[in-house]
Amino acid sequence: MDPLSLPHHDGSALYVSDSEPALGSTVVLRVRVPSTFHVTAVHLRYVLDGEPQFALASPEEVGPDETWYAVPLRMHSPVMNYRWLLVDGEASYHWLNGTGVHGYDVTDAADYRVTTYTAPPRWSVDSVVYQVFPDRFARAEARELPAWAVAAEWGDDVVHQGPDTPRQYFGGDLAGIEAHLDHLQRLGVDVLYLTPIFPAESNHRYNASSFDCVDPLLGGDEALLSLVRASHERGIRVLADLTTNHSGSTHEWFVRAQRDPSAPEVSFYYWSSYPDDYESWLGVRSLPKLNLASEELRKRLIEGPDSVVGKWLSPPYSLDGWRIDVANMTGRFGADELNNDVARTIRTTMADVAPASLLIAEHCHDATADLVGDGWHGTMNYAGFTRPLWAWLDGGEHGLRFLGLPVGVPSVPGGSAVRTMREFAAVIPWRSMQHNLTLLGSHDTPRVRTVVGTADRHHVAAGILLTYVGIPMIFMGDELGLEGLDGEHSRTPMPWEDPLPWAGPTMQVYADLVALRHRHEALRRGGLRWALVEDDAIAYLRETADERILVLASRSSWAGATLTGLTGFEHAENLYGGQDLLLGEGGAPHLPGTGPTFQVWRA
Amino acid sequence: MDPLSLPHHDGSALYVSDSEPALGSTVVLRVRVPSTFHVTAVHLRYVLDGEPQFALASPEEVGPDETWYAVPLRMHSPVMNYRWLLVDGEASYHWLNGTGVHGYDVTDAADYRVTTYTAPPRWSVDSVVYQVFPDRFARAEARELPAWAVAAEWGDDVVHQGPDTPRQYFGGDLAGIEAHLDHLQRLGVDVLYLTPIFPAESNHRYNASSFDCVDPLLGGDEALLSLVRASHERGIRVLADLTTNHSGSTHEWFVRAQRDPSAPEVSFYYWSSYPDDYESWLGVRSLPKLNLASEELRKRLIEGPDSVVGKWLSPPYSLDGWRIDVANMTGRFGADELNNDVARTIRTTMADVAPASLLIAEHCHDATADLVGDGWHGTMNYAGFTRPLWAWLDGGEHGLRFLGLPVGVPSVPGGSAVRTMREFAAVIPWRSMQHNLTLLGSHDTPRVRTVVGTADRHHVAAGILLTYVGIPMIFMGDELGLEGLDGEHSRTPMPWEDPLPWAGPTMQVYADLVALRHRHEALRRGGLRWALVEDDAIAYLRETADERILVLASRSSWAGATLTGLTGFEHAENLYGGQDLLLGEGGAPHLPGTGPTFQVWRA
Repeated sequence: MDPLSLPHHDGSALYVSDSEPALGSTVVLRVRVPSTFHVTAVHLRYVLDGEPQFALASPEEVGPDETWYAVPLRMHSPVMNYRWLLVDGEASYHWLNGTGVHGYDVTDAADYRVTTYTAPPRWSVDSVVYQVFPDRFARAEARELPAWAVAAEWGDDVVHQGPDTPRQYFGGDLAGIEAHLDHLQRLGVDVLYLTPIFPAESNHRYNASSFDCVDPLLGGDEALLSLVRASHERGIRVLADLTTNHSGSTHEWFVRAQRDPSAPEVSFYYWSSYPDDYESWLGVRSLPKLNLASEELRKRLIEGPDSVVGKWLSPPYSLDGWRIDVANMTGRFGADELNNDVARTIRTTMADVAPASLLIAEHCHDATADLVGDGWHGTMNYAGFTRPLWAWLDGGEHGLRFLGLPVGVPSVPGGSAVRTMREFAAVIPWRSMQHNLTLLGSHDTPRVRTVVGTADRHHVAAGILLTYVGIPMIFMGDELGLEGLDGEHSRTPMPWEDPLPWAGPTMQVYADLVALRHRHEALRRGGLRWALVEDDAIAYLRETADERILVLASRSSWAGATLTGLTGFEHAENLYGGQDLLLGEGGAPHLPGTGPTFQVWRA
Repeated sequence: MDPLSLPHHDGSALYVSDSEPALGSTVVLRVRVPSTFHVTAVHLRYVLDGEPQFALASPEEVGPDETWYAVPLRMHSPVMNYRWLLVDGEASYHWLNGTGVHGYDVTDAADYRVTTYTAPPRWSVDSVVYQVFPDRFARAEARELPAWAVAAEWGDDVVHQGPDTPRQYFGGDLAGIEAHLDHLQRLGVDVLYLTPIFPAESNHRYNASSFDCVDPLLGGDEALLSLVRASHERGIRVLADLTTNHSGSTHEWFVRAQRDPSAPEVSFYYWSSYPDDYESWLGVRSLPKLNLASEELRKRLIEGPDSVVGKWLSPPYSLDGWRIDVANMTGRFGADELNNDVARTIRTTMADVAPASLLIAEHCHDATADLVGDGWHGTMNYAGFTRPLWAWLDGGEHGLRFLGLPVGVPSVPGGSAVRTMREFAAVIPWRSMQHNLTLLGSHDTPRVRTVVGTADRHHVAAGILLTYVGIPMIFMGDELGLEGLDGEHSRTPMPWEDPLPWAGPTMQVYADLVALRHRHEALRRGGLRWALVEDDAIAYLRETADERILVLASRSSWAGATLTGLTGFEHAENLYGGQDLLLGEGGAPHLPGTGPTFQVWRA
């Protein structure tokens, strides 16, 4: 069914009058109903202390094409969930919730949600993040090879299988990053996200041996101070990466715990048989699982200004936020369910020491339970963005694995991809959706270029990344079209000296798209309305009160389509892609059937 | 799509080896895959400490029509959620979850769930419940009219609008119920559920003035002792009704609280401005809201053997369980979210004083959050059973309101009704689904006979009630085809003296269906597999390892259909309805196109 012929609501300012309401305040909720969708009354259905309630919405703006209905909702509880009841006559109705319009009675799972929890920092939604894997970005200084490492030269192939995978050491460091901040600025990004920088006996450093200092191999604390200062001077914020689920088995806490039964650190871990057997991340013995029921561990790691969480966000380090590794597992073990408690504690600490800092959780699947809004600000949106997009733009490289599934990334039509995108968006508050990191890949996945197979399709993917809801994150090297078959293989050293990738168009495509996002608030803060969902093409509107933007993405040539009922685009300006928006039947905009292509127009 | 051509799994014994697993134990999960549905591998996808994991299932039983795959799952956490990944080749797959088979990536909302929480009492799933509204069932003794009441004679019309609605007093009592236990036995029910029996100034008694004694108007404590004794002697258990969300404004606690600022009972309520203004149930001032954060209130009402919850389940009263009124709102107020805590506390008290007692929550909508299994055993399944069934069997009486919706009960095709039934079943554990009260109506709704319009359709509804998953509940008088336009109107005095309703076929239909359910374990404990979903007819299988039963319900005449792929019913025995199951194309069973009809066959 033509999505533009259906009523629409989302959490953006067009539909929700206050995105940061306080407990007890009133929010005005609005829904738009196309004239072709007949209603005799529109009601808001919300849940008050566990009981469904109905409030009649009033027609507020009646036009020839659509009517807007509005209704006030008092924020009686920290989370208010609601959906719309679209009545047509005495005994006929539809429901409108986050997954769309339904002709049968639905559960509350896809209800819209608005919350009174403290809002994330305002800068975050306006940002584009750049992810750096420090060992592979740039090397400023040659250092002595650590005992655990196997030396690599910058141009070497990446080892991505076998025991040398975590040991292959290219020697990138923080000063190297600082020396290349120009590159970030050329790209236009405003947040630098660093995977772990604490000492650890691996190139990825997710097996920390301490959280108290920056790895000397990266230049130590001084190098971080310098990098953060230089970044801030250029208007670039810095996020770091913290593992709260486990430490390395070489961590000073674990070593002490294993040596001394009376050490307070014994309580930091789950011992199946002290001191030899302990729980660890998915059975990997070098990553002992942290027990966040331990008060002392909480104090050291997450609670208060002196904790690890607090210290690095405070001066002089002044990091701008954390990405929490394996956040989906942190605080969870068997009958222990402390995940939300841990997230809220971290958030409280951050609010105390750095109120404008951002908290992002690694989370590779459905984060409904973890994203109510009182814990993580957002997650890495692999499940509701990366994966469906990959499956739609799939390049036929079917050996690629993703998110642990024992089957390759499939090739799916636009309808399946969009359905997944909508379903995952529907189960969390809009504000959480806005603060999810959208990404086309990371150090944990194959490279997007390898997945989609061609530069053309890669550029379509980048277009969607930079025009969709969320905080876009670019994994270093994707802007050069680098390739990678799996997460480890994708940890490619940046090819500063190789002219070939720089000669291609991809870098400019990314820079243009980042600039486009920065220029248009609608792309960052607008609503999201699907306009077309075909096998080979999808289109959506990003809309604010001031600006309406139409985005078209196609994976191959297709029939083209006229968007009947969409007005205001008669004299549309092309913002990206270069094609004019011609008019079809009845003067409605006609989407061109070219492909693969990515086009953006403004009404 | 033909549902029998799709893989199937549910929580019954055919598919889950242990319905009462302990933490740390292993459950074997099975899925059946029809031969016409091509798979190259079947995996279980489950979540371990927040991380999705996959386990390859093994083909266990390979037949010409279908293959069964099995895989063990360790109960690592109290709730394990899972779904099936059905792989076909290198990069193509479907998901199977509680709502069916999906060709796109789904959230966890409809994952199957198995839990280690203490199981509900075993008798409950084998029971049929009979609901009695004491003022209207039978009067053994004439008593002096209380001051609040307006006298009615037994044959009077029910007042269901205006201020006399709660005051109209017919004077039914507990001895009256005891005198008519024969009727319950003729019907074959094994649980008597009494709406409130505590003193209160209304005929419904949901505004209790005490929880310490049985209303003298009902015969007092002695009458209850006698009724419970007599019921137990006949093998009938007794459930009572408790309001934990509010008391009456005439309650001894509230009166004391309002009079004496130093009384401990002040903490039992939410005072917006003491002593005059207080929170109440949906603003009804005669029903002040209880504040279950009060330790003293918890002790008196829900916690421990001396609490109200404990006292009435203990000897000498020995009630067999509670139905909790407004359970969906209890413990919830603004930012206070104590619902699950209250439910678990009640359950703990019950486990202490009467381990075999049953705990049912009133809940009129999506109970996902409240039905994980550690609190209420089940709810009244209005949302996932009553309402879709009504909408499917709708008799065109469109003024009827239900569950507070500001629109009449619609008329929907079988597909919409079944979709709602499946979606509401999918979001809770199977064991909770099994312990939901299924019902066609209650003292809070119009009567089913009025909704569906004819005896024929009413009998179809009764057929589904007594062959579906859950604990069937019959509201007194429905077995006689009584009518009622709304909840208050449905509180009809039982027409003991009126020969007309007794002369009709409905009583025998109910008695036959209750007996049918009691005779066949598959109808009580079997799996539920949809076999046919058409606009005017639905069919499902209830199956155990020993017995396979096919149920057909139609609301009008329809085309009939052959259930291709369903084997074993070649020589089916008709258990109810009287029609032979003829064979269609290829020897598959052919469902007759008659209607309205209700038929049950055994393979």
